[in-house]
Amino acid sequence: MELEKIEGGVTAPKGFRATGVSCGLKEGGYKDLGLIYSEIPCDVVGAFTSNKVKAAPVRLSMMRMGNKISAVIANSGNANCVTGKQGESDAIRMTGLTEQFLELPEGSALVASTGVIGENLTMDRVEYGIEKVCRMIKSENNVANFANAIMTTDTRQKNHACEFKLGESTVRIGITCKGAGMIKPDVQMFHATMLVFITTDISMQKTLLHDALKEALEYSFNRISVDNDTSTNDTVLLLSNGAAENAVIEEENDDYRVFVKALTELCMASAKAVVKDGEGANKIVKVEIKHALTISDAKKIARAIADSYLVKTAVFGNSPNWGRVLAAIGYSDAKFDIDRLIFSINGFAVLEKGEPNRANIAKASAEMIQNEITFTVDLGVGYKEYYVWTCDLSYDYVKINAHYIS
Amino acid sequence: MELEKIEGGVTAPKGFRATGVSCGLKEGGYKDLGLIYSEIPCDVVGAFTSNKVKAAPVRLSMMRMGNKISAVIANSGNANCVTGKQGESDAIRMTGLTEQFLELPEGSALVASTGVIGENLTMDRVEYGIEKVCRMIKSENNVANFANAIMTTDTRQKNHACEFKLGESTVRIGITCKGAGMIKPDVQMFHATMLVFITTDISMQKTLLHDALKEALEYSFNRISVDNDTSTNDTVLLLSNGAAENAVIEEENDDYRVFVKALTELCMASAKAVVKDGEGANKIVKVEIKHALTISDAKKIARAIADSYLVKTAVFGNSPNWGRVLAAIGYSDAKFDIDRLIFSINGFAVLEKGEPNRANIAKASAEMIQNEITFTVDLGVGYKEYYVWTCDLSYDYVKINAHYIS
Repeated sequence: MELEKIEGGVTAPKGFRATGVSCGLKEGGYKDLGLIYSEIPCDVVGAFTSNKVKAAPVRLSMMRMGNKISAVIANSGNANCVTGKQGESDAIRMTGLTEQFLELPEGSALVASTGVIGENLTMDRVEYGIEKVCRMIKSENNVANFANAIMTTDTRQKNHACEFKLGESTVRIGITCKGAGMIKPDVQMFHATMLVFITTDISMQKTLLHDALKEALEYSFNRISVDNDTSTNDTVLLLSNGAAENAVIEEENDDYRVFVKALTELCMASAKAVVKDGEGANKIVKVEIKHALTISDAKKIARAIADSYLVKTAVFGNSPNWGRVLAAIGYSDAKFDIDRLIFSINGFAVLEKGEPNRANIAKASAEMIQNEITFTVDLGVGYKEYYVWTCDLSYDYVKINAHYIS
Repeated sequence: MELEKIEGGVTAPKGFRATGVSCGLKEGGYKDLGLIYSEIPCDVVGAFTSNKVKAAPVRLSMMRMGNKISAVIANSGNANCVTGKQGESDAIRMTGLTEQFLELPEGSALVASTGVIGENLTMDRVEYGIEKVCRMIKSENNVANFANAIMTTDTRQKNHACEFKLGESTVRIGITCKGAGMIKPDVQMFHATMLVFITTDISMQKTLLHDALKEALEYSFNRISVDNDTSTNDTVLLLSNGAAENAVIEEENDDYRVFVKALTELCMASAKAVVKDGEGANKIVKVEIKHALTISDAKKIARAIADSYLVKTAVFGNSPNWGRVLAAIGYSDAKFDIDRLIFSINGFAVLEKGEPNRANIAKASAEMIQNEITFTVDLGVGYKEYYVWTCDLSYDYVKINAHYIS
């Protein structure tokens, strides 16, 4: 398969437009209200936070997963969460106004919000903004403005897109996402960890779209870790408008596999971008587990290491503190035999079968200054593998979260 | 019951001596090798880390829980963990030398270590130190030296002791503990979270001593949280030499209840001292859950809040970021009904039955500058309660753990 990276994030696929405006939810005139629009009504599948405290926009969008969708309105600066009955009616009003200004049928807009929890939206600003962004989308197609409008503590936009051939048709997939903190992977489908908007112009049955998203998430957004907090607002939406006019995919054929592969690769690139832009993060660490007896053991160990604040602070300090990694393996609740285990940093085995390797520890120490580091735990007992991407924990994480209201 | 606080930590009970020396495991000449000694051989009960990677001294001490114990040798600066066969023989040698220099029977000394993981002990220094501390204990009884000798990133000694009357006899309990990071509570008996040495001169059957320690730990050291990492070396030891010569307690009578109450109060004071001295900590937060349907729900919610790094950074920033508390409740895996839940900060209800209380939020904000803060989650559905003490997460936590090798 030829998979070509292209520009444009969510606006790359045919028929999708997006832009963003400032309406005053964020201080300083930054963009804070974004809109995705497709002239052709879309099939939509989604994944939402597993947090039992779900924000009003999450609950509303979840209810609309059966509808044909033409627009997604998204704001940053306020999560519209734990906002009582007012929050519910505000979320409904956001979609209602979007539908009204774009002349769409009722129930064909979705909504996503991110920012402070517990504050009601300043609805006069939001209403002004929705009118403005709906007017602008007719003349402006600007993914950068959309990407900026959904950022909170993110330091950069995260847009990815690709195209590939299915028969005579060119199919495109685009992702624009945000997420920097309150990031914890969750293994269940329909649970995600940030705002991820995915568009595609492929023609495919909705149940297959669902399966494709599930598989792509499993290898990407569900394998990252920034902190240990699962947000109340996490949303992944995949919108498909069929504008590529490929032969409709109705079964798990070769075309389906091509799409899943493309979607997975794009989601992996986006997920890594989220970790790299983690709050205060300077480094990305791939924690890979090999030769486990069960996937469950591999996952437990990968996550214990990736979520350990002592491991993450050591990475920040360029410290080859592999003892902390072993401590995390030890409390991971997975079965292992330390006499078979090999732990390596960038390929240098520092612990082999219960004994430290002093020569390799010196080499591994030198590797810790790299921006991308791989920790490998070879359990030596089976054939299952798993990996998680994590980042370091720095002063800036504390700074951002001590003083940022989210 | 009259419970009187007294000085002396582990040396307060009759017949116990302790001191500490410097042998060069820590840089800068700080004390790093401590000894507790009782002329009368003691019954001992203990609780040890649940981490599957257990340090050599932990494994050795666990094996000796059935023995009569006269001495505990403890070092800081090196955890003697993941040190292979050399580590095992070093731990045995530490107890063997202690027994030799104090002329004790084989198997009557215990050992505990704390510090860097994965480095072998510099045994010539340790051997020199053991000879020195065994010689000194004959003329010197200095709990401050012992307490200093077991400190790592601790900023202060943690000594507590009390005495009370049982009939005509005066009974004493003393605790000297250390612990500042790698602190995560664990609910199971025989699992603990730091080095805690408890001495008492009470006469009590060993099985009752065990039950008493279990109950005291449940309300104290198992209810604290600094970070989310469970150490490889955590050890709680309770040594009882019977020197108070009270009527031997052989059943759960009134004297037993008095002892349990005194032990629990002392453990609670020590546990709070550990949280207050948490790595980089400035504040202590009591997270209390009320009116839960089950203890399990109450525990899950208390721990999710106490372990949330977003909550802890907000506390550091004096930010009344109660939305993050609600997010933690939401991902806690406990059952609750947000329409019945009341969340309060120092008594000011900021969320009542799904709706924010704006007037109280302003009052709660003002409370966040306090050094001791109480978060109360009233679930409004039952009669179960639980609490956890936690601390804030500061720049200094990152600083200490980025550059301290442990």
